[in-house]
Amino acid sequence: MLVVMNHDATREQIARVVELIEEMGYQARPMPGAQRTSVGLVGNDGRVDGSRLEALDGVADVIHVSKPYKQVSREWRPENTLVTIAPGVVFGGAQIPIIAGPCSVESAEQIVLAAQQVREAGGAALRGGAYKPRSSPYSFQGLGPKGLELLALARSETGLPIVTEALDDEGAHLVAEVADCIQIGARNMQNYSLLRTVGRIGKPVLLKRGMSATITDLLMSAEYILAEGNSQVILCERGIRSFDPSTRNLFDLTAIPLVQKLSHLPMVADPSHGTGLRDKVLPMGRAAIAAGADGLLVEMHPNPERALSDGGQSLHPEQFVRLVREARAIAEAIGRSITPAPSPAREGSPPARPGRQ
Amino acid sequence: MLVVMNHDATREQIARVVELIEEMGYQARPMPGAQRTSVGLVGNDGRVDGSRLEALDGVADVIHVSKPYKQVSREWRPENTLVTIAPGVVFGGAQIPIIAGPCSVESAEQIVLAAQQVREAGGAALRGGAYKPRSSPYSFQGLGPKGLELLALARSETGLPIVTEALDDEGAHLVAEVADCIQIGARNMQNYSLLRTVGRIGKPVLLKRGMSATITDLLMSAEYILAEGNSQVILCERGIRSFDPSTRNLFDLTAIPLVQKLSHLPMVADPSHGTGLRDKVLPMGRAAIAAGADGLLVEMHPNPERALSDGGQSLHPEQFVRLVREARAIAEAIGRSITPAPSPAREGSPPARPGRQ
Amino acid sequence: MLVVMNHDATREQIARVVELIEEMGYQARPMPGAQRTSVGLVGNDGRVDGSRLEALDGVADVIHVSKPYKQVSREWRPENTLVTIAPGVVFGGAQIPIIAGPCSVESAEQIVLAAQQVREAGGAALRGGAYKPRSSPYSFQGLGPKGLELLALARSETGLPIVTEALDDEGAHLVAEVADCIQIGARNMQNYSLLRTVGRIGKPVLLKRGMSATITDLLMSAEYILAEGNSQVILCERGIRSFDPSTRNLFDLTAIPLVQKLSHLPMVADPSHGTGLRDKVLPMGRAAIAAGADGLLVEMHPNPERALSDGGQSLHPEQFVRLVREARAIAEAIGRSITPAPSPAREGSPPARPGRQ
Amino acid sequence: MLVVMNHDATREQIARVVELIEEMGYQARPMPGAQRTSVGLVGNDGRVDGSRLEALDGVADVIHVSKPYKQVSREWRPENTLVTIAPGVVFGGAQIPIIAGPCSVESAEQIVLAAQQVREAGGAALRGGAYKPRSSPYSFQGLGPKGLELLALARSETGLPIVTEALDDEGAHLVAEVADCIQIGARNMQNYSLLRTVGRIGKPVLLKRGMSATITDLLMSAEYILAEGNSQVILCERGIRSFDPSTRNLFDLTAIPLVQKLSHLPMVADPSHGTGLRDKVLPMGRAAIAAGADGLLVEMHPNPERALSDGGQSLHPEQFVRLVREARAIAEAIGRSITPAPSPAREGSPPARPGRQ
Repeated sequence: MLVVMNHDATREQIARVVELIEEMGYQARPMPGAQRTSVGLVGNDGRVDGSRLEALDGVADVIHVSKPYKQVSREWRPENTLVTIAPGVVFGGAQIPIIAGPCSVESAEQIVLAAQQVREAGGAALRGGAYKPRSSPYSFQGLGPKGLELLALARSETGLPIVTEALDDEGAHLVAEVADCIQIGARNMQNYSLLRTVGRIGKPVLLKRGMSATITDLLMSAEYILAEGNSQVILCERGIRSFDPSTRNLFDLTAIPLVQKLSHLPMVADPSHGTGLRDKVLPMGRAAIAAGADGLLVEMHPNPERALSDGGQSLHPEQFVRLVREARAIAEAIGRSITPAPSPAREGSPPARPGRQ
Repeated sequence: MLVVMNHDATREQIARVVELIEEMGYQARPMPGAQRTSVGLVGNDGRVDGSRLEALDGVADVIHVSKPYKQVSREWRPENTLVTIAPGVVFGGAQIPIIAGPCSVESAEQIVLAAQQVREAGGAALRGGAYKPRSSPYSFQGLGPKGLELLALARSETGLPIVTEALDDEGAHLVAEVADCIQIGARNMQNYSLLRTVGRIGKPVLLKRGMSATITDLLMSAEYILAEGNSQVILCERGIRSFDPSTRNLFDLTAIPLVQKLSHLPMVADPSHGTGLRDKVLPMGRAAIAAGADGLLVEMHPNPERALSDGGQSLHPEQFVRLVREARAIAEAIGRSITPAPSPAREGSPPARPGRQ
Repeated sequence: MLVVMNHDATREQIARVVELIEEMGYQARPMPGAQRTSVGLVGNDGRVDGSRLEALDGVADVIHVSKPYKQVSREWRPENTLVTIAPGVVFGGAQIPIIAGPCSVESAEQIVLAAQQVREAGGAALRGGAYKPRSSPYSFQGLGPKGLELLALARSETGLPIVTEALDDEGAHLVAEVADCIQIGARNMQNYSLLRTVGRIGKPVLLKRGMSATITDLLMSAEYILAEGNSQVILCERGIRSFDPSTRNLFDLTAIPLVQKLSHLPMVADPSHGTGLRDKVLPMGRAAIAAGADGLLVEMHPNPERALSDGGQSLHPEQFVRLVREARAIAEAIGRSITPAPSPAREGSPPARPGRQ
Repeated sequence: MLVVMNHDATREQIARVVELIEEMGYQARPMPGAQRTSVGLVGNDGRVDGSRLEALDGVADVIHVSKPYKQVSREWRPENTLVTIAPGVVFGGAQIPIIAGPCSVESAEQIVLAAQQVREAGGAALRGGAYKPRSSPYSFQGLGPKGLELLALARSETGLPIVTEALDDEGAHLVAEVADCIQIGARNMQNYSLLRTVGRIGKPVLLKRGMSATITDLLMSAEYILAEGNSQVILCERGIRSFDPSTRNLFDLTAIPLVQKLSHLPMVADPSHGTGLRDKVLPMGRAAIAAGADGLLVEMHPNPERALSDGGQSLHPEQFVRLVREARAIAEAIGRSITPAPSPAREGSPPARPGRQ
C-alpha cells in the first residue's frame, strides 16, 4: 500500500502517517519525490483497511498495491481449482461443460423436454430457474419449491446435473437439497449474507458477476464463500452495464483471461444474458470459448415464443445444436474439448451423483 | 408498447405479433412505415411483459412506452408522499431533514457523542451502521445487535430518530425493533426478498440507489415495497459507477428532479458516498439542496482518523456545522428550510416517538 | 511513479526495472513487500512516459503518483487564473457570468432577439453556433461565415461578447476574427491539432469536457493549449456518457470542485447539454452554482419550437429569466454574485472590447 | 418515429404535434393508450430531425424507430462491401487480413525489420504511426512526414500495404500520398471535418470506434464518409470506456456481429488497444476471429522494451507468430481463412498496387 501525500503536506502530517502505519503493525517507508512524498506500507498481507489512512490530514490518495483478496488468488494457490458438479462434469480442466436450459422452469413437460434436448445436443448440465429475480413485482417469479421438484424430475429422466438460482438464505437451503450447483445471480453478487450461507452449505456455487462489478469486486465476493471453507466456486461473466443501448448488457470477454490469471477458480461465460439477443448468442458463445472460457451457460427453450421469461434471448433447440457443434470446433482449435453429456440415469435407480456431497 | 418489426418481416410474422398481443388481452394496432412496420400494443397498464413479444420471429425491437412501475408513479398519485420517521422529521415537504452520523457504530461513547454533535449542529436524525456490508470478509462488519442497543441509547440521550441499515431478512426484523427508518443499501437494492420483507414490516424505509441502477430500476425496486402495502419509502441518490477514478462514485444529482417528476416519493442525497471525498461533501451537499433534494444523508465522525470504516469521507464535527449552515442558506434561497432537530428526550422518560408505528 | 512487480518476478527482472529507470535519468528505489516488490521512481517531474516500464518482463502494473499535467496544475500556479472575455466579463473570480443563447444562429432576427432577451434577463455573454457538429451529415450544419456575421451584428446591437464554436483549424481562424471566446466542443476535446491552433491564436478558449473524458483527460487537453502559451482557458462540464437513458448525458457536478482543486483554471457548467431536458436546466443550473461553478452556459431560444437544433433542451425566454433570478439567489447564499450584463454598445461606435486581445 | 405524450397532455398539445409532423411533410398517426397517447410519424426515411418535436409542450419523449443512418445500412445495400487496400488484401470477404506493426514509426531499421517480421509471420498489411495523438503534449508525437517516407520504404522492401493514421485535414492529404488505407483514430471519430476530407480523398479508410461511441454513433460517423461518395470504409472495434480499471479499455466484441447485421461494411478488431495488456492480445485476438471479425489490427514491435509508445501492449515478434497461427486455427474452425501476405515487391520496380485508386 502506498500513501500519497499532498504536494504541500507538512512534516508533521507525514510523521503521523508513519506513526499510524506502525500502530497498525506494519513498516512504513517514506519516499520523498520531486513533487510530493509517498509513504510505502510494507508487510501488507492483503487485509489492511486503508480507510484509516485516507482519513489523515495531508493524505492525497491511498494506492493499493497488494490485492485485497487472498484465498481466491492464484498467488495463494497456483494450480487450477477443479469444480465437479457431477461425475464427469468438471469446471477448470481441459474439458469445457455447457450448461443449458430455459430461463424459468414452467412445467414438467417443458423442463423434461428441455433437458432431453440439452442432453441430445451435447450439453453437460441443465439450468432453469425455480426462483426468479424479476425487476417487476408483477412479473412471473418462478414456481418455487414445485420448480425444484420438476428440476429433480428432469435430472432423473436425463442424468443431467442441475444448476439453479437461490435468492435468499431460506431459499438457498431448499435449492441445496436438489441442485448440484447453486447459482448466485448478478443482483445478489454483493449480498454478503447469502454468500456466507452458500459458503457454509458447502455445495458447488456458480457466482455471477454483478452488473457494475469490477473484476476485483467479483473476486472479493468469491472470497466471502471461500472464507467459509467452500472452495467449489465457479465464476461467471454475464455482461455489465454500459452506455450503449444496442445490447442489454456489455459482454466483457476479457474478464475471462483476466480472472484466470488472477485466480485459480474456473471462469465461465453466459452469452445469453451477456448480449440479451438471441442471434448474438452463437457468435459470442464461440468467442467465449476462444477467449478461454471454462464453460458456457446458455438459455434454450423448447419453444421460446411460449417462454414466460427471457424468450427473446433464448435459443431454439436447433440453434443450440449448432452452438454446441461450433463450440466444439473452436475448443478443438485451441486444444480443448467440450464435456460430453453424462451417462443417462439407469432405470429403476436414482442417478448416480457420488460427487454431490 | 411498440413492437418494431424487421425491415424484411413477412406478412405472417406481423400477423403473429398481432395475434399474440390479442391473446395477451390487449389491442394491436399495426402501423406500416416507410422502412418497416411497427405494431402498437394498446391498453398496457404497466404490467405487460414484453419478452414474449421479443421472442417472435421478425421482431427487431420492443419499445416500452408505458412505465413498468405503477404505485410509485406520480401518475398514480399526483401529490407528494410525506414520510414521517419521528414527530417533526418529515421527508417530502418544504422542510429538509439532515441525517448524519458515523459510518459504523463503534462504542457507546462514540455514538452518543456523535449524536450530540449532530443534534447541536442542526441535524434531524442519526445514522450509523450496526450491520455493515463490506467488500472484504476480513473488514470490520459492524457490532450487530450490540450496535442496535447503542443506537437506542444515543436516541434516548438526544431524541434523534435512528436510520440504520439491514442486510438480510433476519436482520431486518432486529433493525425494525430499534430503528425509526430501515435503510436498504445500494448493494441490496435488487435483493427482492429483503425488499418484500421491509415492505411487510411497514416501517419507513430509506432505499439507496444501486451502483448501476437506472432511475427506472430504482423505482421498480421501490415498487416491490409499495406492492407489500408500505408506501413510507424515501429514495436516495448515493453515486453510481462511472469510468473516472477521480471519485469513488459519480454523484448523479439530476436523479433528484428526475425522480421527483416521475414519482411522488421523497428523494434524498448522500454526498458522502456520492463523492467518497471529505472535501467534496460540502459543495455537493449544497448542490443537492439546490437541485431540490428532500433531505441529506451525511457521514460525520467525532474523530474521523479513528473511524473503523469510511474515515476518509467522514466530516469532522466542525465541518458538519458548516454544512448545515450552508445548506440552510441554500434552502432559504429556494424557498425551503432545514428541519430543526427534534425536541430532546425528557429526563426520566423514554423519548416520545408516537409516529414510529 | 511506482512500478509494481509480479508476485514471482525474478531478481533479474527487478534489476532490469532499476536499470531502465536510471537510464531514463531518474532514481530507482526498490521496496520489497510481503507479497511483491515495488520499485519507486523518484524525481518524476510529470513528464515520465511509463509505457517503456510497462513493457518490461515481470512488471504487473505502473502506478502514476505524480499528475501527468503541469502548467494547468494548481501546484504550478496556486492562485486562480482570471479569464476576461470582455470588459467586466471575467471567469474565475467572485462574479459568475452566465452565457446564453440558441444552439444555432438561424437568422438576423433570431440571434438579435435572443441577444436582447439574454441581456435583459441578466446574461453576460451570447452563445450561438455558426458551425455545428451534428452526428448526422444530413442535419443542419450551421450557417458558417454568415452565422459569424450575424453574431457580430448581435454583439453590436447589445454589447454582449460572443462565445462560439470552431470545428477545425480553418474555422478556428475565422471564428477568432469575430468571437470573444472560441469554444471547443466535447467531440473535439482530444483533437490535438485544433487545440494547438487555438493555443497559438491566443484568444480565450472555452474547452468542453469530452463525453468519456476523465478529469485528467480534460486537464491534459487544456495543457495542450497552455503549452502553446495561451493560459486564457475556461473549462466546462457538459455531461458524460452513462448507462441510464433517462437523460441525454450524466451531468457530473462533482467535476467542478474537483477541477478547481487540481487546477487554477475556471470551471463552468452547461446544464442544457448536461441534462438534455429543458425542465431539468433550472434545478441543475442552480445546483451548478451551489457546487461552485465559475459560470453557466445555457441554451435559450426565442421560440424553441422553431429551433433548427436542440429545441428540446432550449429554455423559453421567460424560463431563462427565472434561471438568472434563482442563480442569483444561490450565488448570494454562498457569498458570490452573478456578473451583470456589460454596458450596451454606444450608438455610432463599435462596442468597446479592449480586453479582447 | 414515435412521439410519446405526457400522461396529462391536452388535446391541443396532441393536435400541435400532429400539425408539426404534417408541416414537416410526413403523416401523423395518433395512438391513444391506456396511460398516454403516442403519435406515430409515418414515412420517415431516416432523415427526420426529432428535436423540433421534442421541443413541443406536452411531449414526454421522442422514440426513434427508424435508424438515423442510411448509406451504411444493410437495408440500403444487402450484400457485404469488400474493401481492397492492395491486391489480395480484401476486407469483408471470407479471408481475414491481419494488420500489424509498431505503435509508432521510430527509424528505418525498426520499421523495415517490423515489416519483415509481420510478413514472415503471415500478416497482410503493415501498421505504424507517423502522426500520433498523445494525451500529453510532452509525449513523443511521431516522426511526421519522415515517418511516412519510412513506411513507404518498408512497403517497397516487403510488399505489405500501409495503414497509418491522419490527425487533421492537412495531414490527411500527406498520409493519402503514401498510405494504402487512412486510419481515423478513436479520438477523431466525431471530427466531422476530417471525416469529410477523407471521404473526398477517396482512398480506403479504417475508422476506429470512439471511446464512448455507441454502435449508432460509429455508423453515423461512417455515414459522413459515404455521404462524400467514398464507400471504402472499414470499421474497427478498439475498446470503450468502462468502470473497471483492470483493463485500459473494455473490448466490446459483440459490436462485431451487431455492426455486421446493421451494416454492409467490414468490421475489424484491435485487441491491442481493446485490452491494453500484452498477455490479453492473444486470447482476445482469437475471440475476435471467433466472433466473426473481418480482420485484426495488432501492435507488434521488434523490441517492445525499446518502444517509444505503447510498449506495454505490443507483442514480441514470436508472440505475433503464435497469434497468427492460432487465429488461423480459429478461422478454419468457422469456415474462413487468414489472408496470406501479398507477393513481395519485385526488385528494381515499385511494388504493384493497382488496386490503390
